[in-house]
Amino acid sequence: MSEDKLLFTPGPLSTSPTVKQAMLRDVGSWDSEFIEIVERIRHKLLELAGVSQAAGYEAIPMQGSGSFGVEAAIGCSVPPEGKLLCLVNGAYGERILNMARCLQIETSVLQCAEHDTPDLEELTRRLNEDPAITNVIVVHCETTTGIVNPIADIGRIVSAAGRTYLVDAMSSFAALEIDLQADGIDYLISSANKCIQGVPGFSFILARRAALEASAGQARSLCLDLFDQWQSMETHGRFRYSPPTHSVLAFEQALAELEEEGGIPARAARYTENQRVLSEGMRQLGFRAYLPPERQSCIISTFYYPDDPQFEFQTFYDILKQRGSIIYPGKLGEVDCFRIGTIGHLFPDDMRRLLSAIEAAVVEMGLNRSLPVGS
Amino acid sequence: MSEDKLLFTPGPLSTSPTVKQAMLRDVGSWDSEFIEIVERIRHKLLELAGVSQAAGYEAIPMQGSGSFGVEAAIGCSVPPEGKLLCLVNGAYGERILNMARCLQIETSVLQCAEHDTPDLEELTRRLNEDPAITNVIVVHCETTTGIVNPIADIGRIVSAAGRTYLVDAMSSFAALEIDLQADGIDYLISSANKCIQGVPGFSFILARRAALEASAGQARSLCLDLFDQWQSMETHGRFRYSPPTHSVLAFEQALAELEEEGGIPARAARYTENQRVLSEGMRQLGFRAYLPPERQSCIISTFYYPDDPQFEFQTFYDILKQRGSIIYPGKLGEVDCFRIGTIGHLFPDDMRRLLSAIEAAVVEMGLNRSLPVGS
Repeated sequence: MSEDKLLFTPGPLSTSPTVKQAMLRDVGSWDSEFIEIVERIRHKLLELAGVSQAAGYEAIPMQGSGSFGVEAAIGCSVPPEGKLLCLVNGAYGERILNMARCLQIETSVLQCAEHDTPDLEELTRRLNEDPAITNVIVVHCETTTGIVNPIADIGRIVSAAGRTYLVDAMSSFAALEIDLQADGIDYLISSANKCIQGVPGFSFILARRAALEASAGQARSLCLDLFDQWQSMETHGRFRYSPPTHSVLAFEQALAELEEEGGIPARAARYTENQRVLSEGMRQLGFRAYLPPERQSCIISTFYYPDDPQFEFQTFYDILKQRGSIIYPGKLGEVDCFRIGTIGHLFPDDMRRLLSAIEAAVVEMGLNRSLPVGS
Repeated sequence: MSEDKLLFTPGPLSTSPTVKQAMLRDVGSWDSEFIEIVERIRHKLLELAGVSQAAGYEAIPMQGSGSFGVEAAIGCSVPPEGKLLCLVNGAYGERILNMARCLQIETSVLQCAEHDTPDLEELTRRLNEDPAITNVIVVHCETTTGIVNPIADIGRIVSAAGRTYLVDAMSSFAALEIDLQADGIDYLISSANKCIQGVPGFSFILARRAALEASAGQARSLCLDLFDQWQSMETHGRFRYSPPTHSVLAFEQALAELEEEGGIPARAARYTENQRVLSEGMRQLGFRAYLPPERQSCIISTFYYPDDPQFEFQTFYDILKQRGSIIYPGKLGEVDCFRIGTIGHLFPDDMRRLLSAIEAAVVEMGLNRSLPVGS
C-alpha cells in the first residue's frame, strides 16, 4: 500500500484521519442508532445554511455523487411543462444543461465567458421576456476555473420574478457563507465530500418545504425522486434505498470537526489563507493565474501553463506526486492550464510544502523562471 | 460510540475489519493509482461471472445504491419504443416496475405469489403473443422472502425469443454461482455491499458488450447513463462523476478476501451452512419458515411471527439488539413475519449466538414454545 498523498483537487478531497476512522463500523440502516444520526445531520445542515425546519426548510441526503443530487433537484423541481434557465460559465453549468436535456426538460441558456459572471441585466430581461421559464439554476463556484458567481444578486432577481431558484453549491457550501432565506434559494445542492470534509457517497439538498411539497409526483426518476426521499425521511427516518452507512458515519464526524474548528467562518478563513499562500507563492514562482483576484474563490485556482516549451503537464504532475501532492488538470477547452484546490483537510503549511514541490519541479524540468507575471 | 452489532440483514451487511480498514486512505479519483484499482475490479467482476472482455462482456460500476444500478440498466437498455416485461414475486420486482413506469417505459407484468416462482409456460406464451416486448427482467433472489427465481430456465426462454434479458442479482451475486453466458444474461446488476462483502457506495452492472453498444443514446438520465459511464471507463478509466473512492478501496480488499476464502463456491458453502444452522435452530425454537426448503435461498430467511399474543416485534428486536444482533422486519403485506439474513461477514458460530439470543428473547417475553412447527 502506497503512502497517502495530499489532494489539492476539487474533490474527492483529503479528509482528517478521525473522519476516516469513523467508518470502521457497520451499522444497520434501519436501526434507531442510524436513523438518529441521519436526523442529527439533517438538522445540522439546515443550521449551517442559516435556516431550520421551523423556518420552512428541509435537508435531504441523496445517494450518489454531487451530480446525482443536482439531477434529483432539477428532475423533481421543474414542472412537467416547465422550462429551466441555466446560467452557464463553465463545465458544471454545461453539465446541468445536459442533465435537463437528457430529462427532456425545456431549457434556455444564459452563457458567458468562463472568466466572467452572468450579466444580471440580461437575466432580468430574459425572465421578463420569457414567461415560460419556471426555474433558474446557477453554479455558485464553478470549479472549472474557481470563479464565484453572485448568488445573492441573482437570487434577488429570480425571487422578484417569482421563479424557483436552484443553486449548485457543490464546492462552496461550508467554504463561503450562504443564507438560504436571505438569498431566496429554493433548492441548494452540495455533497458530503466537499467543504464539510466528509468522504464521498452522497449529496444533500436543502430545500424550501413549500417548493418541495409542490414538486410531488414530478420526478423523472424513481431513484432520484427527491420528494419521495424526503417523505421516507419524514415518515421512517430512512433513506428509501440502501444508504452509504459508512459515508454517513464519516459525515457526522466531519460535521463535529467543522464545529470544533469554529464553524463556517473559521473554515472559510483557513481556505482563504490557503489560497492566499498559494496565490502569492505561485506568483513568485512565475505562474500566472487565470482569474483576476476579485473573481477568485478560496476553493480552487486555475493557473496557465508556463510559457516554456519544456513544460509538459504529465511530467509536472508526476514530480509533484512523487513529493506527495496530487494536483488537477485544467478543464478549459481552449486554454492550457492546471488547477490547484485549497479545500479539504489542508492547511497553510501544506500549501507551502506544495509550493516547495512546485519549485523543485520547475528546477528539475529546467523551466524558464522569468515568466510573464500578470493576472 | 456504541459497540458494533452483527447485521443479520439483507444489507448493508457486516463486513470484515480489514475491509473497513482499507478505507483509511484518501486517493485522487483521476490519479493512475485509483484508475488501476478500478480497472482491476472490473476485470475481477467479469471473472467471477465466468466471462471476460475477450468473450464480449463489460463490467461498469455506478455510483449510488443497488437500485441506482437497476434503474441505470433499465433506463439505458430499453429502446425508446421498447416494452419491459417484469417478472414479479416480491417488493424488489414491484420496485423495478415502478422505476420503469417513472421512466415512462411501457411495461407488462407477469406476477405470481411471493412464495412462488414465475410460471415459465406463461412466460413463453407472453413472449410469443406480445412482439412489442423487447426486454425481460427478473430478480434472482427476492429478499422480500428469500426465494430464488430460476434465472437459467428463464434465460433459455428469453434468449430463444430473442429478447434482451436483465437479472437483478443484487443479493445473489457471489452467493450463488451464475454464468452470464450460459444463462443468456445481457445485463446483471449487483452491489458493492452484498455478497462480495464490500461497503455501500456503488452498484455494478455486468453487460454483454453488443447489448451495451446498442444502448448508446437511449439513457433517460445523465447520471444514470450506463453507456456513457462505460465509455468514460474505457477512454479515461474514470467514473464520469466523483466516485466513492473509499468504497472502491474497500471493494478491492473485499474481492481479495473472497479469493482467499476460496471464491464463490466456498462463500456459497459458508452461507449455506449459516442458513442450515439458522433454519434448524429456528425450527427447534418453534418458529415456522415462510418458504418451503426447496425455494429457500442461503441469503435471507423469512419467519412467521409466533402464534402467541405476547409476541411484539419491537420488543423482540430490542432484546436481540441488546445482545449484539440486528435482524430485519418483514416486507410482506399481509403476513406478519420477520427476516434474518445469513450473508456478509457472518459465520455458523454467529448464527448459533443469534439463536441463543433468540432463545433468551423467547424466555424473556414468556412466549409459548409449543408452537405449530411447519415446513
